[in-house]
Amino acid sequence: MSLTYGGDYNPEQWPRDVWDEDVRLMQRGGINLATVAVFSWARLEPRPGEYDFAWLDDVLDTLHAGGIRVDLATATASPPPWLAKRHPETLPVTEDGVRLAVGSRQQYCPSSPVYREHARRLVERMVERYAGHPALELWHVNNEYGCHVSRCYCDVSAAAFRTWLEARYGTIEELNRAWGTAFWSQRYDAFDEVEPPRAAPSFRNPTQLLDFDRFSSDELLALHRAEVEVIRAASDVPITTNFMGFFKPVDYWSWAPHVDIVSDDTYPDPADPDSPAYAAMVRDLMRSLGGGAPWLLMEQSPSAVNWRQRNAPKAPGMMRAWSYQSVARGADGILFFQWRQSAAGSEKFHSGMVPHGGTDTRVWHEIEQLGGELRRLSEPAVGLEGSRVPSSVAIALDWDSWWAIEQPASPTSVSYVQALFAWHRAFTSLGLAVDFVRADGDLSAYRVVVAPAHFVATDAQVASLAAFAEAGGTLVVGFGTAITDEHLHVRLGGYLGEPLRRALGVWIEEFAPPAAPDLGAVGGGAAPTVALEGDVVGGAASGSVWAEVVRVDDAETLATFTEGALAGWPAVTRRDVGEGDGAAWYVATLPDRDGLARLVPRVLEDAGVAVPPSPTASPSRAGDVEVVRRGELTFVINHGPDAAELRLDGTDVLSGAAASGLELPSQGVAIVRS
Amino acid sequence: MSLTYGGDYNPEQWPRDVWDEDVRLMQRGGINLATVAVFSWARLEPRPGEYDFAWLDDVLDTLHAGGIRVDLATATASPPPWLAKRHPETLPVTEDGVRLAVGSRQQYCPSSPVYREHARRLVERMVERYAGHPALELWHVNNEYGCHVSRCYCDVSAAAFRTWLEARYGTIEELNRAWGTAFWSQRYDAFDEVEPPRAAPSFRNPTQLLDFDRFSSDELLALHRAEVEVIRAASDVPITTNFMGFFKPVDYWSWAPHVDIVSDDTYPDPADPDSPAYAAMVRDLMRSLGGGAPWLLMEQSPSAVNWRQRNAPKAPGMMRAWSYQSVARGADGILFFQWRQSAAGSEKFHSGMVPHGGTDTRVWHEIEQLGGELRRLSEPAVGLEGSRVPSSVAIALDWDSWWAIEQPASPTSVSYVQALFAWHRAFTSLGLAVDFVRADGDLSAYRVVVAPAHFVATDAQVASLAAFAEAGGTLVVGFGTAITDEHLHVRLGGYLGEPLRRALGVWIEEFAPPAAPDLGAVGGGAAPTVALEGDVVGGAASGSVWAEVVRVDDAETLATFTEGALAGWPAVTRRDVGEGDGAAWYVATLPDRDGLARLVPRVLEDAGVAVPPSPTASPSRAGDVEVVRRGELTFVINHGPDAAELRLDGTDVLSGAAASGLELPSQGVAIVRS
Amino acid sequence: MSLTYGGDYNPEQWPRDVWDEDVRLMQRGGINLATVAVFSWARLEPRPGEYDFAWLDDVLDTLHAGGIRVDLATATASPPPWLAKRHPETLPVTEDGVRLAVGSRQQYCPSSPVYREHARRLVERMVERYAGHPALELWHVNNEYGCHVSRCYCDVSAAAFRTWLEARYGTIEELNRAWGTAFWSQRYDAFDEVEPPRAAPSFRNPTQLLDFDRFSSDELLALHRAEVEVIRAASDVPITTNFMGFFKPVDYWSWAPHVDIVSDDTYPDPADPDSPAYAAMVRDLMRSLGGGAPWLLMEQSPSAVNWRQRNAPKAPGMMRAWSYQSVARGADGILFFQWRQSAAGSEKFHSGMVPHGGTDTRVWHEIEQLGGELRRLSEPAVGLEGSRVPSSVAIALDWDSWWAIEQPASPTSVSYVQALFAWHRAFTSLGLAVDFVRADGDLSAYRVVVAPAHFVATDAQVASLAAFAEAGGTLVVGFGTAITDEHLHVRLGGYLGEPLRRALGVWIEEFAPPAAPDLGAVGGGAAPTVALEGDVVGGAASGSVWAEVVRVDDAETLATFTEGALAGWPAVTRRDVGEGDGAAWYVATLPDRDGLARLVPRVLEDAGVAVPPSPTASPSRAGDVEVVRRGELTFVINHGPDAAELRLDGTDVLSGAAASGLELPSQGVAIVRS
Repeated sequence: MSLTYGGDYNPEQWPRDVWDEDVRLMQRGGINLATVAVFSWARLEPRPGEYDFAWLDDVLDTLHAGGIRVDLATATASPPPWLAKRHPETLPVTEDGVRLAVGSRQQYCPSSPVYREHARRLVERMVERYAGHPALELWHVNNEYGCHVSRCYCDVSAAAFRTWLEARYGTIEELNRAWGTAFWSQRYDAFDEVEPPRAAPSFRNPTQLLDFDRFSSDELLALHRAEVEVIRAASDVPITTNFMGFFKPVDYWSWAPHVDIVSDDTYPDPADPDSPAYAAMVRDLMRSLGGGAPWLLMEQSPSAVNWRQRNAPKAPGMMRAWSYQSVARGADGILFFQWRQSAAGSEKFHSGMVPHGGTDTRVWHEIEQLGGELRRLSEPAVGLEGSRVPSSVAIALDWDSWWAIEQPASPTSVSYVQALFAWHRAFTSLGLAVDFVRADGDLSAYRVVVAPAHFVATDAQVASLAAFAEAGGTLVVGFGTAITDEHLHVRLGGYLGEPLRRALGVWIEEFAPPAAPDLGAVGGGAAPTVALEGDVVGGAASGSVWAEVVRVDDAETLATFTEGALAGWPAVTRRDVGEGDGAAWYVATLPDRDGLARLVPRVLEDAGVAVPPSPTASPSRAGDVEVVRRGELTFVINHGPDAAELRLDGTDVLSGAAASGLELPSQGVAIVRS
Repeated sequence: MSLTYGGDYNPEQWPRDVWDEDVRLMQRGGINLATVAVFSWARLEPRPGEYDFAWLDDVLDTLHAGGIRVDLATATASPPPWLAKRHPETLPVTEDGVRLAVGSRQQYCPSSPVYREHARRLVERMVERYAGHPALELWHVNNEYGCHVSRCYCDVSAAAFRTWLEARYGTIEELNRAWGTAFWSQRYDAFDEVEPPRAAPSFRNPTQLLDFDRFSSDELLALHRAEVEVIRAASDVPITTNFMGFFKPVDYWSWAPHVDIVSDDTYPDPADPDSPAYAAMVRDLMRSLGGGAPWLLMEQSPSAVNWRQRNAPKAPGMMRAWSYQSVARGADGILFFQWRQSAAGSEKFHSGMVPHGGTDTRVWHEIEQLGGELRRLSEPAVGLEGSRVPSSVAIALDWDSWWAIEQPASPTSVSYVQALFAWHRAFTSLGLAVDFVRADGDLSAYRVVVAPAHFVATDAQVASLAAFAEAGGTLVVGFGTAITDEHLHVRLGGYLGEPLRRALGVWIEEFAPPAAPDLGAVGGGAAPTVALEGDVVGGAASGSVWAEVVRVDDAETLATFTEGALAGWPAVTRRDVGEGDGAAWYVATLPDRDGLARLVPRVLEDAGVAVPPSPTASPSRAGDVEVVRRGELTFVINHGPDAAELRLDGTDVLSGAAASGLELPSQGVAIVRS
Repeated sequence: MSLTYGGDYNPEQWPRDVWDEDVRLMQRGGINLATVAVFSWARLEPRPGEYDFAWLDDVLDTLHAGGIRVDLATATASPPPWLAKRHPETLPVTEDGVRLAVGSRQQYCPSSPVYREHARRLVERMVERYAGHPALELWHVNNEYGCHVSRCYCDVSAAAFRTWLEARYGTIEELNRAWGTAFWSQRYDAFDEVEPPRAAPSFRNPTQLLDFDRFSSDELLALHRAEVEVIRAASDVPITTNFMGFFKPVDYWSWAPHVDIVSDDTYPDPADPDSPAYAAMVRDLMRSLGGGAPWLLMEQSPSAVNWRQRNAPKAPGMMRAWSYQSVARGADGILFFQWRQSAAGSEKFHSGMVPHGGTDTRVWHEIEQLGGELRRLSEPAVGLEGSRVPSSVAIALDWDSWWAIEQPASPTSVSYVQALFAWHRAFTSLGLAVDFVRADGDLSAYRVVVAPAHFVATDAQVASLAAFAEAGGTLVVGFGTAITDEHLHVRLGGYLGEPLRRALGVWIEEFAPPAAPDLGAVGGGAAPTVALEGDVVGGAASGSVWAEVVRVDDAETLATFTEGALAGWPAVTRRDVGEGDGAAWYVATLPDRDGLARLVPRVLEDAGVAVPPSPTASPSRAGDVEVVRRGELTFVINHGPDAAELRLDGTDVLSGAAASGLELPSQGVAIVRS
C-alpha cells in the first residue's frame, strides 16, 4: 500500500520541454499521481467532432515513463466556446433571467441535452483511447460538479423540472397538495404551468424551492451517472469525482454510492483560526460518505488561494499539518491544485506545488518534505494500511434540512453548517472522531447520536432517532428539528413528530429566536443572544441563533433560559428512554462554545463514552492540539501558536523519538504508535 | 354596537372537518368576523371561465350557521398560474427588465388590461353570488394593493404611463417644461418617446420619477375603483381594502374617499423598543384617513411574523396591549392574520390565532382573553360607541414630499417617515393624540400644525399653512419644506415660498446637512450630527439628517447652531403672525429626542394647548406609558419593562377597580372612566 | 495673459430675459469664459436632421456683446430621446444584459455607428456655424467621456471588440496565447467565438478583462478623435475635453496628446479632511498629462454637490482655497459647474455660482471675490505668466496596472489610487510638487522616481525603471510591481523582471497580504495590518494592503516585518546602483502615514533633494498647510481648522503684506513673492 501524493497537472499551459522537467521534479517530490485533462476539452476537441489526442498521449506516456500514475479526467467540466457559439441555449440562466456567457468556466445548463450529448461523445473517445493505458489509476469524472452553476432557470431546465415533478408526484393534484398551493392562490391546473423558482414578487413557494434544490442536485448527479455508465462499459479502473466538503447545492449522500472512492477539494482559510476545527469536520464527512473507507484529499492549496478578498499564505508547516489531519481522519492520499503555478489565467495567483519563484522556495521544500514522509508512512510496519478511524458519536446530516432551514420566510436566520460545526467541534476537541450519518441510516454502531437543526424529517427519520434512544443510545436533539415532513408540511401539535415528542418528553409551543430591531441587524452588530443557566452548561451561558418555548411533559430540565419572556422556560432537558440505558436530550438553542464544552462531556458520560486523556502536559494547550486515533496510530497536531509538550506513551513514527515529553512546535505533528 | 374581532380565514388549506372545529373555536374565542377568500382565485376559477363556488358557499354557510359574519374578499389579489401561462404579458417587470414569475403572489402588472378584465369577471361572479348572503358584513377589495408590485416597467405600463402623462400635460411642450428636460438634453419631441424610469446610465429625471410614482399609485387605485364599481352596482354592503400603515408606494389620501371604512395591516417588530411609539403613529394615520371615523385593524400578528431576518414572538401581553392601542386611537375592531396557522406555504411560520401547537398555548389563551374583554367593552355602558379621539395638534403628511425628498440627487439622505415620527412621538409622549392632515386641507380645528420635511408644496399648500398662522394658529415648519412646487421646480429666492417666508420671517440661503466622508458612511457608523443650543431645546442638543443656513428677516432666534461653518446661525426661530395669537416657528434640523421633548411643550404653551398631567406616580415611567383619550375613556398602556403605578381618578373598566393606585404591570392596560 | 474664470452656462433652462441679467452678473463677477451647449443636442436638433441654432446664436452673441468668451461644446454628450426611439440598438447594455433607457444622460453605446454618425453630423453643423464666431475661445468636445457608460456589452460592442482584438493579435492563436486560454478550456477556435466579458459563471479571463478595458478606453477615444477631426478641418481654435481626475475607465495618457489643453472636473468631498491632499494629487496629474503646461480646472462646485449620500457645502473660504491650490499646481483657469443653479432636473441641488437664493449669499460673494483676485493675479507684474511648477520627484502611473491589480482573483484587494495617494501625500506634505510619469517615459528630469503597485510592466518599463537608477537616480519600487507583463503573464522567477531584480538586489518568493477571516471582513472592521520596524520608518510602524516574502540577493535591509510568519523578513531594502549615486529601494508593503513620513525624507536625502523649510512658525500646523512653488511664487494654503503664522520671506501678492508673521486663518491663502 502506498499513500497517494500528487496534484492537478495542466501541462497544456506550458511548452513541451517543461514537461520533462515536471516529471523530474515530481520524482524528486515523491509525487505518484497526477490529475490530468480536467480543463482540456477545448484542446482535445478544438472544433465539433474533431479530436486531437496526440498531446495527451504524450502527457500520459511521459508521466508513465517517469513512474507517475494518472488520475484521468473526462474533460467535460468546461465546454469549449464553440459549443456556446453554436448552441447558445446550452448557456445557463440565472433566476433573474441573465444568460451567462463564455469566458470563465462551467458555462453549461446541467439539463441541456445538447451539452449532455457532446459530453457523452467526448467521454466515449476518452475511454476508448485511454482505458487500457498503463498509467491509468483513476477516472476523474468532470470536476467539482455545480461549483459555479448548480441551478439553472432556463426554459430547458424548466421543462426538465416539470418532467422531474411529474415523476415525483404523478398528478398535478398531488403536487398541489405537497406544495400547499391552496395558499396564495398558487394552485396549478397542469404541470405545464409550473416554473422553476425564478425571481418573483415575494417569497417563492417553499416546497417548490426545496424540490428545485432536489431536482438540481439530481440533474447534476444524472450527468455524473451518464459519464460513469460510459466508463464502466469499457473500464474497470476505479472512478471518482471530486466533492467540495460541506457543499450546499449537492446532496452528497445520494452521490456517494456512485463513486468508487470518495475524494474532496477543501480550501480552509489560513487567516481564520477556526479553520483547523472546521476542516476536521470536513474530513470526517468525507470518511462518513464512504462508509469509513479511505478517501482522497483530491485538492488543497500548497499555500494561498486567490479567490478570497484577501488571500493569506499558509504559515510554515501549516500545509503539512493540515495534510496529516486528513490522513488522521481517514485519507489515503494528499493531492493539490495544482502542480505548477499558472503564469496566466484566472488562477495564476493560486499557489502551486512549483511556485512562480521556482524550487528554492518554502513551498517547494515543504512539498518535498511531505512527499518523503508519506513514502515512509506507507511502509507496512507503520500499520496505516487498512486502518480505520473509530467513532462512537455521530451527527445526523441532511441536505433537505440544510436547504429548508436556510430558506427565507423562516423563524430566523440559521446557518445549518454552523450549527453542525458547533456540535462537531465540542466532541472533536475532546479527541473523539465524529461520524456523519443519515438519521434513518444504521445508527446501531453509535453510542451518541446528535440531530442538530434537522428541520426536515421524514416519518422514518423521526422513528429512527427515537428508536436509537429506545435501543439504549443517547440521543441529543437540537433546536429546529423535525419541524416539518419531507413536503415542508409542519408537524402539528408541537413539532418534533409523535415518536420524538414521546422519547424526549417535550413539545415546542413557539419559537422565540434571539432578535434585535431590524436597524440593529444592518451593519452586522453582534448577533443577538439569549441567556441560560444550568450546571449542565457550566453555570451561566448564552445561546445564539434560536430559542424556543419548550413544554415538558415528562423530562428533567437541566438548564433554563433566564431572560426576557423566555425566563424560566427549559433550555436543556433529558429523559430516560426505553428499558436500558437510553436517554433523550433536548437542547433548545445553540449554546456558546464554553457552554457546549461543558454539556458534551455530560452527554458522553450519560452514554458511557470515555473521554481520552489530554495528549499534552499543559491542559490550556488542549484547545489548539488536535488528537485523532486511526487504527493503532494516534495523530497529534498542534494548530496553536505555541509549542506543546506531549505526554503520550509510545513512539512518534515520524521522528522515531519517544512521544512522551516530545516538544510539539506550532504546526508540529506527531504520529504515535503505542 | 359591537367591537369587531376576528381574522383572515383560509379554510381551503384544511380538510372539511377542520372547518366545524374552526367555528366552534371562533365562538369560544369571541370571534365575530372572518375575512374569507383573499387568496382563493385559483380555487374559485381553476381554469379560465370555469368557476367553482361550492366550497365557498359551504364556508360562508358554515360561518353563518355559527354566527360568524364575513368580510368577503374579491379574491383578485393573486391571479392563478394559468393567467401567466396564457398571458405572460400580465407578469410585472422590474426596472432592470426582469419579468417576475409565478410561484409567490401578486404577479400582475397593475396596468394590464388582461388582468383587469379577468379580475372584473371574477368580481362580477362574486357579487352576483354573495351580495345577498346573510353572513356578508363587508366587502374586502383585493388585498394589500401594491405590497410587492407597486411599480411595473413593462411595455404595457409604459403605454399606460404615456396615456396618463398626456392626460396630465396635454402637450409634450408642457411635459418638457414640467420635467425640466432642457437640462441633460432630455427634451421629448413626442409622447411616444417617453419611457417609465427604467434603469438608466445616471440619475433619472426627478419629475419623471415623481410622475411615475403618482401614476403607479393612480393605476392601483384605478384597479380598486373598478372593483368598487362592480360591487356598488349590486350591493350596499360597506367596502374596504386593507391599507398598510405608512406605505410609501401608494398615496392613501387619494384612496381614502374610495372605501367605506378604513382598515389597516400593521406588523410592528416586537424586538424593537420603538415599535409602540411608531405603531401609535400608524393608528393616528388610520383615524385621520377616515376623517376621525372608527377604523379596523384588519391584520396584525398574534405573535411572531416570518419575514424578518429574525422574528421575535410578541411578549406575553404585548398583543393585547397593542390591540388596545388601536382601540384607544380610534379602531372599532381587531383582526389578525390569520385564524389557523398554516401548515404549509410561505407563511407557515407566521403566527396564527390557533397556533401549530393547538389551543393549550399562550397565544390561544391571549386570543380568548381579548375576545372576552372586547365583548364586555362593547357594552353600551362603557361608552365606547360613537366616541372619538380629540386632537388639537396635526402633522401635515404628503406623499409627493415623501416620494421626492427620498429621491437620489437630493441635498442629503432623508427618511421622511422618521422625520414625521420624531415630531409625532414628541407630542404623543405627552398624552396628546395627533392627527395627520393635508397641508391644504381644513386646518381650522387645530391649534398646532407641524409641517416637517414637506418638500413638495403647491402654492395652495404654502398659502394654507401661512393662513393657518395668520388665523391665530401655531405653525411649526420643519427643515426641507416647500423647497419645490408640484413639478419639483425649486422655489427660488430662498425656498419656502413667498407666503411662508413672510409668515416665518426667514429664508434659507443654503443647505448644510451633517455629513461625513463617504468612507465613513459605509458600514453604517453613527449618522453625523450637528450641535445646537438654546433654552428652547433644553440647552445643548444635537440635530441630525439636515441643517440649513437660515437667514432671518424678521423673527426671534430661539436656538442656534454651535459648530463648524454653521456656528452662530439660527436653528430654531419664532415669529408672531397676524393680528391674534398666531405664531410661526421654523426648525432647521431634526433635533434629537431630548431636544424635541423640550421644544414641543414650548410650542404647545405658545398655542395655549394644555399638556395632560402624567398618568403615573413615577415620572420616569412616563416615557414607557402611553396615554390616549377616546371619548370619555382614558386608555393607559404600559409598554415598558417595569410596573407603573397609576394616579388617575376614575374606574378601570377592564378590572372594575379604582384607577388611582392601580399597579400596571409591563404590557398592562387600564381603561379609565372618570 | 489672463487667468480664465467662468463656468458651465446652460441658458436654455431659463427665460430669455434672464440671459441679460446673466451677462451683467458675469461681468460683475469677473467671469471671462462660459462653457455653452454641453447638453443641448435635443434642443439643437429637436428631430432627426432638423436643426435649430437661432437660440444658440443669440446666446453666443449676447455673451460676446458682454465681453464673455465661449468654450463651445460639441453638444454630443447626451443624444436626444428620439435617437433611442428610432435606434434602440444605440442604447448601452450592462454586463448583465440590461439595456439602459433614456431619462438621464449619456445613453449611448460608445461603439454604435449610428450614434457616431449622428454625432458627426451635429459636430459638422456646429463647426460650420460657429468656427468663425468672435466669442469662440475653445472647443469643448463632448463631456466627461465615459462618466456613466464607459463599458458597453451589447452585440454591437461585441463585434467592435472582436475587430479590435483581431487588429491587436492578428490570429486567434496569438489571442489564445496572450489570454492563456489553455487554462479552463477557454481556447477559441475563431474570433467570432469571443465575447465581451459579460456576466459568467466564475472569474472571467483576466486578460480578456484587461483587453476589454483597453478596448473601451480606445473606443471612447475614437469618439473624441472623430470629433476632433471634424473640428480641425475647419477651425484653429484650441480643443479640449474635460477629464475627471483619477478616472479609472479611461487611460488619460493615451488621451492627452489629443487635446490642446488639458482640463479637469474635480469634486472633492468637503466633509472629508483628506480632500485637500487628494485634490493636490489630482492637480499634479493634470499638470503632468499636459507635460507641465498650464491646464484648466474646467469644473468644480461653488459649494455642495448633490450626488453623495450626504452633501456638505464647502466651508467659507474653502472654494477659494481649493481654487488657489489648482493655480499653484499649474492651472491657468478656474471654472465651475454651473453658472446659475438649476431650478429643475437632476442637478438642481448641485450648487451654482448664482445660487437659488440669489446674489445676497455667501457663495456669490465668494465668486465675486475670487473673480477680482484672479484679475489682479493676471497682471504681468505678478509673474504668473508662463510660470511652471518644478518637480524632482515623479510617481509612475499606469492604467493597465490600475485595471489589473484591482481585478478579482488577485492576491488581495488593492486600491491602486490609494497606494499612489499614500506616496504622493508623503512627498507633497514636505512642500514638494510631484509629477506623474509613464514608467517608460523620459525620467531624466527627476531625482526620485517611485513605482508603487506598478502591477503590469512591459519589458520596456522594467528596463526604463532600472536604467533610471543605473543613471544615478533614486528609484523606489513599491509592492506589487512588475508582477506581470502586458498580457498579464506572470514574470516568473520571483516577479519584478530581470532588470529590476538585478537593480534592487531582491526577488519576491511569495505574497503574504495582511488578512483576516472572511467573516471579519464583512461589516468593514478595520483593515488588517502587518507590523514592521526599522529606523528608516521611524522605529515601529504598520503596513496595510500588501506584504511579501522578500528574498535578498544583494541589498541592505532597512526595515523588517516583525509578526507572524513574516517575522524577520525584509520590509524595506536599499541597494547602491550603477557607477554614480543611483539607488534602488524596495518597499514590500504600504507603510502607514507616519511610517511613510519618516521614510520619504530618507529617500530624498539619498537622492540629494532638499526638503523646503516649513512655511509656518508652528511645525504642528505643517500637516494642514499646503505649500507649492510655481515659478517665482510660493503658494501657502491653510486647509486646517486653526490659524497658522507664516515665516516666509517676501510679500504676499494678494494682500500686499509682508509674508513673515502673517496670520493665515483657516482656509486662508498667501501667494508669496520673494
